[in-house]
Amino acid sequence: MLNPGDFYDLNLSFTQQQVNDFAAITGDNNPLHIDPDYAKTTRFGRPVVHGFLAGAVFSRIFGTLFPGEGTIYIYQDMRFREPIFVDKNYRARVEITEINPEKHNGTVSCLLIDDAAVPEHRTCIEGTARLKHLTEFV
Amino acid sequence: MLNPGDFYDLNLSFTQQQVNDFAAITGDNNPLHIDPDYAKTTRFGRPVVHGFLAGAVFSRIFGTLFPGEGTIYIYQDMRFREPIFVDKNYRARVEITEINPEKHNGTVSCLLIDDAAVPEHRTCIEGTARLKHLTEFV
Repeated sequence: MLNPGDFYDLNLSFTQQQVNDFAAITGDNNPLHIDPDYAKTTRFGRPVVHGFLAGAVFSRIFGTLFPGEGTIYIYQDMRFREPIFVDKNYRARVEITEINPEKHNGTVSCLLIDDAAVPEHRTCIEGTARLKHLTEFV
Repeated sequence: MLNPGDFYDLNLSFTQQQVNDFAAITGDNNPLHIDPDYAKTTRFGRPVVHGFLAGAVFSRIFGTLFPGEGTIYIYQDMRFREPIFVDKNYRARVEITEINPEKHNGTVSCLLIDDAAVPEHRTCIEGTARLKHLTEFV
């Protein structure tokens, strides 16, 4: 059973191979993600991880870890604040902010954070999710 | 140059192989997506496509087709209204609803629609995106 304030952290990184595979599966072949020569010509300077690949960490956490099995995804929003790059370490932090026990719904804040950024850690994705879980949100 | 009311439709479907590959790449191994025996025990009755795999069609359209190259993703929200299944036809519809020419930003409504649902077509994902494009949103 989860309560407001409960949170979960997951450390992760992305490889160029993951990005290339994600492009192949989803059809999202934007060269910004998969073509280093093209990416060099952009303001980012190197390939950027798809926002949807990075954001899928929230779905992974909710569906398999926190709350885990039985979670129904109702809503997700994501603000893409900073580019996400391959072979860098990130931390996903999800935290329960509100629970509606009658509807078995929970609201969860979602962050993808670059802890190594200077002068201070940087939030790359900021979002909110709404989930349903019959036994965790009671 | 795009204007409010301009829209783009993309027909697509998802295979179980795509879903399995998406699970492997993202780590989202929720058995609801990849284990038909488990999925049968849920209210859905069969494997459900990851919301993030289905929703990635919006990223694909924005980054490669409409507006296409040069698009910067600022924000996306998604309401997962109905489950999405493999080997079914869906239509993604994105439509410009507002443009801020000073900031070169556009707001886009996003739908993933099951046109074959009875008695009437069914919206499976409903969302909003905000994009930046220097030459299309002017």
